[in-house]
Amino acid sequence: MSSSESQPPQPPPPSDSAATISKKAAKKEAAKLEKLRRKQESALAATTATLSVDDDDPLAASYGDIPLVELQSKTAVDVNTWTRVEALDRSLENRTVLIRGRVQTIRPVAKKMAFLVVRENGYTVQCLLQTQPDLVSLQMVKFAAALSRESIVDIEGIVSVPDTLIKAATQQQVEIQVRKLYCVSRAVPTLPINIEDAARSEVEIEKALQEGEKLVRVNQDTRLNFRVLDLRTPANQGIFRIQSQVGNVFRQFLLSEGFIEIHTPKLIAGTSEGGAAVFRLNYKGQPACLAQSPQLHKQMSICGDLSRVFEIGPVFRAEDSNTHRHLCEFTGLDVEMEIKKHYFEVMDIVDKLFVSIFDSLNQNCKKELEAVRKQHPFEPLKYLRQTLRLTYEEGVQMLKDAGIEIEPFGDLNTEAERKLGQLVSEKYGTEFYILYRYPLAVRPFYTMPCYDNPKEYSNSFDVFIRGEEIISGAQRVHKPDLLEQRAEALGIDVKTISTYIDSFRYGAPLHGGFGVGLERVVMLFCGLNNIRKTSLYPRDPVRIVP
Amino acid sequence: MSSSESQPPQPPPPSDSAATISKKAAKKEAAKLEKLRRKQESALAATTATLSVDDDDPLAASYGDIPLVELQSKTAVDVNTWTRVEALDRSLENRTVLIRGRVQTIRPVAKKMAFLVVRENGYTVQCLLQTQPDLVSLQMVKFAAALSRESIVDIEGIVSVPDTLIKAATQQQVEIQVRKLYCVSRAVPTLPINIEDAARSEVEIEKALQEGEKLVRVNQDTRLNFRVLDLRTPANQGIFRIQSQVGNVFRQFLLSEGFIEIHTPKLIAGTSEGGAAVFRLNYKGQPACLAQSPQLHKQMSICGDLSRVFEIGPVFRAEDSNTHRHLCEFTGLDVEMEIKKHYFEVMDIVDKLFVSIFDSLNQNCKKELEAVRKQHPFEPLKYLRQTLRLTYEEGVQMLKDAGIEIEPFGDLNTEAERKLGQLVSEKYGTEFYILYRYPLAVRPFYTMPCYDNPKEYSNSFDVFIRGEEIISGAQRVHKPDLLEQRAEALGIDVKTISTYIDSFRYGAPLHGGFGVGLERVVMLFCGLNNIRKTSLYPRDPVRIVP
Repeated sequence: MSSSESQPPQPPPPSDSAATISKKAAKKEAAKLEKLRRKQESALAATTATLSVDDDDPLAASYGDIPLVELQSKTAVDVNTWTRVEALDRSLENRTVLIRGRVQTIRPVAKKMAFLVVRENGYTVQCLLQTQPDLVSLQMVKFAAALSRESIVDIEGIVSVPDTLIKAATQQQVEIQVRKLYCVSRAVPTLPINIEDAARSEVEIEKALQEGEKLVRVNQDTRLNFRVLDLRTPANQGIFRIQSQVGNVFRQFLLSEGFIEIHTPKLIAGTSEGGAAVFRLNYKGQPACLAQSPQLHKQMSICGDLSRVFEIGPVFRAEDSNTHRHLCEFTGLDVEMEIKKHYFEVMDIVDKLFVSIFDSLNQNCKKELEAVRKQHPFEPLKYLRQTLRLTYEEGVQMLKDAGIEIEPFGDLNTEAERKLGQLVSEKYGTEFYILYRYPLAVRPFYTMPCYDNPKEYSNSFDVFIRGEEIISGAQRVHKPDLLEQRAEALGIDVKTISTYIDSFRYGAPLHGGFGVGLERVVMLFCGLNNIRKTSLYPRDPVRIVP
Repeated sequence: MSSSESQPPQPPPPSDSAATISKKAAKKEAAKLEKLRRKQESALAATTATLSVDDDDPLAASYGDIPLVELQSKTAVDVNTWTRVEALDRSLENRTVLIRGRVQTIRPVAKKMAFLVVRENGYTVQCLLQTQPDLVSLQMVKFAAALSRESIVDIEGIVSVPDTLIKAATQQQVEIQVRKLYCVSRAVPTLPINIEDAARSEVEIEKALQEGEKLVRVNQDTRLNFRVLDLRTPANQGIFRIQSQVGNVFRQFLLSEGFIEIHTPKLIAGTSEGGAAVFRLNYKGQPACLAQSPQLHKQMSICGDLSRVFEIGPVFRAEDSNTHRHLCEFTGLDVEMEIKKHYFEVMDIVDKLFVSIFDSLNQNCKKELEAVRKQHPFEPLKYLRQTLRLTYEEGVQMLKDAGIEIEPFGDLNTEAERKLGQLVSEKYGTEFYILYRYPLAVRPFYTMPCYDNPKEYSNSFDVFIRGEEIISGAQRVHKPDLLEQRAEALGIDVKTISTYIDSFRYGAPLHGGFGVGLERVVMLFCGLNNIRKTSLYPRDPVRIVP
């Protein structure tokens, strides 16, 4: 779909030959014409949106809007009747095919011709209507020219192979000579955002600006307001396929390691893990809240001898964090497991799991990553076959050596995390690493203190990608008396978590686990600048629609 | 763990030989002794719970409680140091092994001997302590005898092969001669429910009752109150492994058919799909609610060209339904897909998907199904290679022929569903079938009306397992004007769903989908009588803990 953006509504050739004018001039011209084309198209749409088939046309049966009754599952058909746009190639030359897709661009040429670029699943093909006796009427071309962009059409036509490559479509070697054209579903004539605007990269916009042209920039809020249009860009199609793949590898890896998938309740009595950041609600007359994580219930599942569990599900945080990396609802990837002796057993799983995820994305999502990269340029993530592990103390020392003083028993702030990420990347050549043995004071009450310094350190770790924290994990306290003591020390009312603490009274296994945010994994792997880009319908302090 | 239930605390042999007394008498005796054993054990526990290792014992290093400091990840070890109980067999004879598991039963014999049955992941092994100079002291036996059931222990010992099969454990060919015994994690001396009570089948209880014995029956509420203990029964270990497998096959099948997994928000502005059954909450000052299904957002994702999507996530219903098959929070398996012409394309996916799930459970979860069946007897589900499809009218006619009159444009009630299931099973030999072409009046506003009778019928279907509805699906209305009209006709305030309806204005694909409840699939496949058995921590109108 990319090269179609600057396609001017000028006469043939139907397949573009190499441009001969200077790039800069061409760009300028293109932008002008683009503006013009939009005006024309919108005017055209306004006058012809209600255009119906001309009954006097002997070819009237070859085009038109499919009536509702035909779309109400009137006849079952073999879905293989349609050829996928992706599958169109030279082997189909002179064959008649039926395709279904969206009209991405419409380029009328005088009154006798029209070019449609039709898109299906990110692949596009150029379709040509040219008046011909007994085949294509003037009215049919008019119908095509008056289609609104993003409408869905069925096109039957003959595959032809033009002399030169078609630049306006991803299928460059073939085009379709249209014989029949039916509109399945119409889009409104004026779209709130145009897909090619939404698909434009910042780089392109900046470059054009330097050359004196102002291309449309669709801001994040507008995108999210019209998410169903925004989702149709190649980058977004890539992002959500990558997200699906992360979930898939996460599960498959853990299942292969003997984990089972669980589903814990999101409706919790009382106030979950405590704190202000909970959404409260009334549960049949009882005070309740939404789970801030599956922490308590995944640990209880370990006490119930499920041994190794994971969960993929929503996590709710009522925090007022208007940052690039916080959401009020996100998808948590949670793991909890029995350990034999040491929480490094948990870190070993983290290590292998994430290397598997990264490897799989690089191998199986090449096309999707490329689509993201085209709009949002990024360098591939640097990671090692065996993940680097540093103690918190070593991290603090590295920062100190670089002139940054950190409170040794406090937490790293965002800036320090980023700096440390940079130092680690320079020294060890990885942008993915584990920092362990965190200060006890900055970890939740259920974190096991260190054996050799239980007042100051804990058996816990964070994991970083590109200098941002992505995973938190730890060995958990499995002794109910110590758990109570730790909760009290952190000011938690033990009565509110009594069912949780009681779970440890019937013989609790040694265990540990970790939690990850799915949206953050995708955001940081792809080097994106905002978590709203990797959440399908993000929820933040000011957004709860669509 | 099964045969240990009626194991009396009588003298050796260490490996049981076949019983010679009559079964009835044995049962009676066993029940009596069981009662006695519990009393003894509890008394013993009370007196010795605080027992610590006797420092005067030269073998003091061979047993005792592992101190906390050792459990705080002091040393990392190779987890393969432990042999899994499942892996214990005759090939290990005379070898020294280390195992970790729960003490399921403790049977002291005079003061010189004790038998422990140790359980790990559903497998059990009998461990024998017998005083021997320089190896096992009297104090060590005393320590073992005083352990509380469900405590977790590390046992080092020598694998021996007894002359006769051991009935008290799943590992019948070997036992362990204990040399070292360390308690990793203690359970309280008196458990609120005993695992063998919780694992007992109704059949067993009824049979005993007829023979004049009253065995302990643990009721559903008690089980749920102490879910971490209840989860340790073989049936529950099976149920939640089966549940994990259903989710896994659901995903893998759909991924292989080109679907992607999405995550839609559970926090929704306004009132979701409307109606009284929503949980309302305050979202940063705005009225909001919890999604009753991902319906609107999965359809929007289709409008966003994700083409074929599925979601596995929580679904919230504030209904006051205190039935065996309703929960206030359950796990929804949702699917939505573009269709070319007919909603049968959706039914084709349902058909193949569920046959895959059933096949996989039967093939890959044999052990788990057997564990469930042992406590909750059920017949394997009867289903066809190609799923039976009947119209709603045909269903109504079958009921009519059987003397049951149904309102032709109403819905089937639970009783009628069950009866129809029975009739279908008798006539077609299947307990899994699709009923389609439902009356329009009983379907949600977004359901596409039938092409040939749009006032009375709809392009929708329900799917049944063992006479209970499990899946609802349909073609959706993709035209915004018709969608508005249908919403208004059903009394829905169109303004409250405007972002949803607007999604269809930009060229909406023909599409359809369906939704399933994960807990119901597992419940009905296993012929269980209550959905609370297949929800890890169920939420119903009166339960929000643990």
